[in-house]
Amino acid sequence: MKSDLFAAIEAGGTKFNCAVGTGPDDIRASVRIATTTPTDTLHDVMEFLQNASKLGRIAGIGVGSFGPIDLNRQSDTYGYITTTPKEGWKYTDLLSSMGELFHAPVGFDTDVNAAALGEYTWGNGEGCDPLIYITVGTGIGGGVLVNGRPLHGSLHPEIGHLFIPAIQSDAPNPDGICPFHGDCLEGLISGPAIAARWGAPAETFPADHECWGEFSTLMALALSNLILTLSPQRIILGGGVMHQAQLFPMIREEVQRMLNGYVQTNEVLQDIDNYIVPPGLGDQAGMLGAMVLAKQAKGR
Amino acid sequence: MKSDLFAAIEAGGTKFNCAVGTGPDDIRASVRIATTTPTDTLHDVMEFLQNASKLGRIAGIGVGSFGPIDLNRQSDTYGYITTTPKEGWKYTDLLSSMGELFHAPVGFDTDVNAAALGEYTWGNGEGCDPLIYITVGTGIGGGVLVNGRPLHGSLHPEIGHLFIPAIQSDAPNPDGICPFHGDCLEGLISGPAIAARWGAPAETFPADHECWGEFSTLMALALSNLILTLSPQRIILGGGVMHQAQLFPMIREEVQRMLNGYVQTNEVLQDIDNYIVPPGLGDQAGMLGAMVLAKQAKGR
Ligand SMILES: Nc1ncnc2c1ncn2[C@@H]1O[C@H](COP(=O)(O)OP(=O)(O)O)[C@@H](O)[C@H]1O
Ligand SMILES: Nc1ncnc2c1ncn2[C@@H]1O[C@H](COP(=O)(O)OP(=O)(O)O)[C@@H](O)[C@H]1O
Ligand SMILES: [Zn+2]
Ligand SMILES: [Zn+2]
Repeated sequence: MKSDLFAAIEAGGTKFNCAVGTGPDDIRASVRIATTTPTDTLHDVMEFLQNASKLGRIAGIGVGSFGPIDLNRQSDTYGYITTTPKEGWKYTDLLSSMGELFHAPVGFDTDVNAAALGEYTWGNGEGCDPLIYITVGTGIGGGVLVNGRPLHGSLHPEIGHLFIPAIQSDAPNPDGICPFHGDCLEGLISGPAIAARWGAPAETFPADHECWGEFSTLMALALSNLILTLSPQRIILGGGVMHQAQLFPMIREEVQRMLNGYVQTNEVLQDIDNYIVPPGLGDQAGMLGAMVLAKQAKGR
Repeated sequence: MKSDLFAAIEAGGTKFNCAVGTGPDDIRASVRIATTTPTDTLHDVMEFLQNASKLGRIAGIGVGSFGPIDLNRQSDTYGYITTTPKEGWKYTDLLSSMGELFHAPVGFDTDVNAAALGEYTWGNGEGCDPLIYITVGTGIGGGVLVNGRPLHGSLHPEIGHLFIPAIQSDAPNPDGICPFHGDCLEGLISGPAIAARWGAPAETFPADHECWGEFSTLMALALSNLILTLSPQRIILGGGVMHQAQLFPMIREEVQRMLNGYVQTNEVLQDIDNYIVPPGLGDQAGMLGAMVLAKQAKGR
């Protein structure tokens, strides 16, 4: 008899990261598909899933997607990517085709809520309540778990667009680039924002370049506000830009300096090295989180 | 036979607001006690409770307190006000004496988490998930309910101290007054901050004074960040300063302007008049929330 498998799809603006298996130590098949047009990309995803379904019964499907997405099950556009600025992807139905083809339940959430779930289940966020996961890449996104469950509310967190206090900047082009808000977090320190404001791709700056000092201050302002609002038990920072490992100690020090002894928690005062951390699952957090969504969908 | 009653204590920096009853329409006794020294104030509270206990059995006690407080039941200082700057109140044990005297279970939370619970149960926050309650008075505090339950995490929210982007200010003394952070929300727009920065008590400025325009912009920045972080289904603004009713439309308009169409929810785009609202329970939200804490303590 074939065993039950779960399909995980991390739908990103650059690539779709897909896998079939049961957990981090049991991935039976995986593929990366470039994000081109919805028709082409979703076609390739379906093809991967159909091939993978020969390995075992697909008992659940999980999709963690870039957003904004519609998470309201009562809505006509449940399971859609909605008002994204990404060319061609406005109001794209991600789920219907997959669920129908495999007669399997489908779990759906933001890519970053999924990544938070992945870290909570198998990575660096075990038992942390609340848990915050932030990715800094092409955009900035944040997922929040309260009591182990993704926070939704009237939409879902959009931490990437937080307003943060302006600081004196030595960047050659100091203005933020968010088309909606200019100087929001994403407008100032996403990968493309660093490139635009400092004049070269983020990965080309040496570890001691002044752009990273500014990055740490701005990120610390955002994290301080998140600590004051959510009182998280841990914050995980992932995504391409956070491969700059020197940023972690810089950000931690700035957070302590800004909060200035007001938040009297062991996490902030004594143990900040275990409070603001990289993902335990590396760049697989989102995909593995989608697998958790698949398992939860089956369990419902 | 005497009926079961619940004791509610809102412990504030100015006054302790105490009542005994079963709900907003059934308050059997109430009193306001000035916040002087812990010994004197708590003595008067105990006296009130002892008298009130002649009206019926006290089946539960609820305390909503100014903070920071220790909410960790495993901690030696559970039930204490901890590092407050308030003279004489550092490390004050609020709960032990009460619970022992009445052999009743005691519920404990921040004054603002309690107020959020009160509004969720009997006021303007029914069914809202998440629900945010913010008071703007001598200080600024915020309570958050997720799934109807107060958010705690490693401490509890401290929304009053959010960092907000500096704006051009015409105040005679533009600098914020928070001893920890200077220009945090409380440092800029609490009652005493308005008085210090604009040169006269907040209640003396006419409704069209420019201080209210600045207030609305700064509050809207904080609320926009809270909307992006928590995706609340409603935000309730209470406290002395929010008696300035003209502030509500001004804040709503600023929030819409700042979010600039990015948060595509009905609440923000169409129905903001029912999204950012005053408390349905007026200045009784905190006390009645403490009564909810008392009832929940009994139910445990
Ligand atoms: N080592 C690195 N240092 C700094 N920035 C990096 C590094 N690697 C990738 N980036 C930046 O991260 C962004 C891509 O983020 P990534 O998380 O890999 O993908 P995406 O956000 O598209 O899923 C690009 O803007 C790139 O410049
Ligand atoms: N009508 C009003 N307009 C503006 N400010 C007010 C008004 N009433 C009270 N305040 C201010 O609110 C603060 C007191 O807040 P309040 O919520 O009543 O008490 P507390 O925060 O001490 O519990 C004072 O700083 C006072 O100046
Ligand atoms: Zn933005
Ligand atoms: Zn402050």
